[in-house]
Amino acid sequence: MSKNHYAVIMAGGVGSRFWPLSTVEHPKQFIDVLGVGKTLLQMTYERMCGIVPKENIFILTNKKYVTLVKDQIPSIELRQILTESVRRNTAPCIAYAATKILKMNAEACMIVSPSDHLILKEKDFQTSIDTAINSAQNNNRIVTLGIQPSRPDTGYGYIEFSKGSNVIAGEVTNVLQFREKPNKETAELFIRSGNFYWNSGIFVWKASTIVAAFKHYQKDIFELFCADNTAYNTDKEQYFIDEAFENSPDISIDYAILEKSDSVDIVLASFDWSDLGTWKSLNEHLPKDTFNNSIIGENVHTFNVKNCLISVPKEKTILIDGLSGYIVVESDNTLMILKQSHEQELKNYLKAIEV
Amino acid sequence: MSKNHYAVIMAGGVGSRFWPLSTVEHPKQFIDVLGVGKTLLQMTYERMCGIVPKENIFILTNKKYVTLVKDQIPSIELRQILTESVRRNTAPCIAYAATKILKMNAEACMIVSPSDHLILKEKDFQTSIDTAINSAQNNNRIVTLGIQPSRPDTGYGYIEFSKGSNVIAGEVTNVLQFREKPNKETAELFIRSGNFYWNSGIFVWKASTIVAAFKHYQKDIFELFCADNTAYNTDKEQYFIDEAFENSPDISIDYAILEKSDSVDIVLASFDWSDLGTWKSLNEHLPKDTFNNSIIGENVHTFNVKNCLISVPKEKTILIDGLSGYIVVESDNTLMILKQSHEQELKNYLKAIEV
Repeated sequence: MSKNHYAVIMAGGVGSRFWPLSTVEHPKQFIDVLGVGKTLLQMTYERMCGIVPKENIFILTNKKYVTLVKDQIPSIELRQILTESVRRNTAPCIAYAATKILKMNAEACMIVSPSDHLILKEKDFQTSIDTAINSAQNNNRIVTLGIQPSRPDTGYGYIEFSKGSNVIAGEVTNVLQFREKPNKETAELFIRSGNFYWNSGIFVWKASTIVAAFKHYQKDIFELFCADNTAYNTDKEQYFIDEAFENSPDISIDYAILEKSDSVDIVLASFDWSDLGTWKSLNEHLPKDTFNNSIIGENVHTFNVKNCLISVPKEKTILIDGLSGYIVVESDNTLMILKQSHEQELKNYLKAIEV
Repeated sequence: MSKNHYAVIMAGGVGSRFWPLSTVEHPKQFIDVLGVGKTLLQMTYERMCGIVPKENIFILTNKKYVTLVKDQIPSIELRQILTESVRRNTAPCIAYAATKILKMNAEACMIVSPSDHLILKEKDFQTSIDTAINSAQNNNRIVTLGIQPSRPDTGYGYIEFSKGSNVIAGEVTNVLQFREKPNKETAELFIRSGNFYWNSGIFVWKASTIVAAFKHYQKDIFELFCADNTAYNTDKEQYFIDEAFENSPDISIDYAILEKSDSVDIVLASFDWSDLGTWKSLNEHLPKDTFNNSIIGENVHTFNVKNCLISVPKEKTILIDGLSGYIVVESDNTLMILKQSHEQELKNYLKAIEV
């Protein structure tokens, strides 16, 4: 484990998915969606503990979630929790973290990771990270971790890479272009072509590389967060940063840097990954009973129930009869019973009932 | 309103129906099953207040429900709450109440009523009660209120009456026989014959008449509850009664007296009645939305939902999508989702999960 390696966990998302489990007050990353006894943030933090020194892990979140972060990761110091005062998407957050870390360590190499995704096969994950660090450190590349697509999913972003003769799973190669959520036909084309991977949102780069990229591609953000680093790692940092966020453009790192730079690599990663963006995608990762039900809860009694996802608090008693293909979720005295095939309507329903 | 008229409301039932709304700790009669802001007991009490003097109303219940009764009917005095220490079905309870009332008033005429049934058209109910009182007082008859059957229901008891030329709805006539829950074919036969009504469980008789009937048909119960009335309406009553219940046979008034006596009349009543014995029968009496849903609750949001009965606490938020023909009930942190056509299985489910 190198002292030059840092992790920045992005934990500021509001997570409109997984209602009623997740809410603006308690978004997805702070929830034990899998019912395993650990929240997604805790799982992400533990994963990073195996890769970088603990003191080099930073969690970037919104001010309103600081208490949640501290509650869920008691061992983390407050200096390791970086806060945005207003939501400005990922680019400003990363500019902030990179400049701060660069001031600590000119050789720093950063892993940036979402806090609300699922990663299985952690050894494969570590191998992919090692490959990415290699490319980032030795060649000053901006590296993304790509996931081999298993289906023409229209909910993910895709990355096209150059299909050289020696491009094999696990290796790194250069990115040709990023393609946001495609339609069904395009997604199928991507899969068939063989040189499109899913964008996992996990990035690796040297702090100096990404700060230089901001200087080149995002002058506004560079001026606000990177040009003057005197306040970083002093008691003036929070004040400085609050003002920078206030004045910052609202833009994602993908759009701000990755889609513009010609120095982007992709690791053709082989670990199992899900962004857990839908109940359906969560359901794929839950253990099943004999009737293909995923059940989280300790007092759930089912009769003639199949292909359902049921998630209720431990203390809740529930009897369900005769359901097939539904999502039944209770949280915080709010119950949802949703036909699985209608999941894409949930957003509209919530808008209609103004939740 | 005659001072000689008394009401005895039977409120000791454990009500295994309507789980999870009703439980042994909080049976059906103490619940606002219709979502109208009043429990079935409160509705029964108010109905009786229109018929007999308030101070002549007695509520017979199990000791464990005394607090519930007092909470729901604050104006009732403790002397008006008669308690059974152990469950011995309706006959001993009625022997107790009749002897006690008879000691107060030798001319007393009693109306005995369940506390967990629904009665609509209260004016028609009053008319039927008047007819029954007439027969009970003037002819010393044991009178039951029969309900004109609207379907060959196999869940009700039936009463056969003699089909004289002048037997019309609203009139009183003599009972030929009681027939407990018949099978489908027999029930259909009953309906076609035209001289079978449903047994409502509402009875009217002079206290002296029913005590005499106990003496004739149920010597055990008579000896325990009626032969010696010295303890009644004194501070020795509870002790005396507790012991009597302890030693009493366990038998219903129908089986103990009504099926044996040849002095039983039936009023061919015309009020709307339901014993609310099933979710289905409850559902028939609830107001419906455009999609034939019955919804009790203030934060229930439905999308593509039809033919459902939904009953949740006021403070509960619930979003339901894509359900048709289900019963969704939440009470006391317990949730039931039951296919309506499987209602008859509920008893078995509860046995299986040992609720």
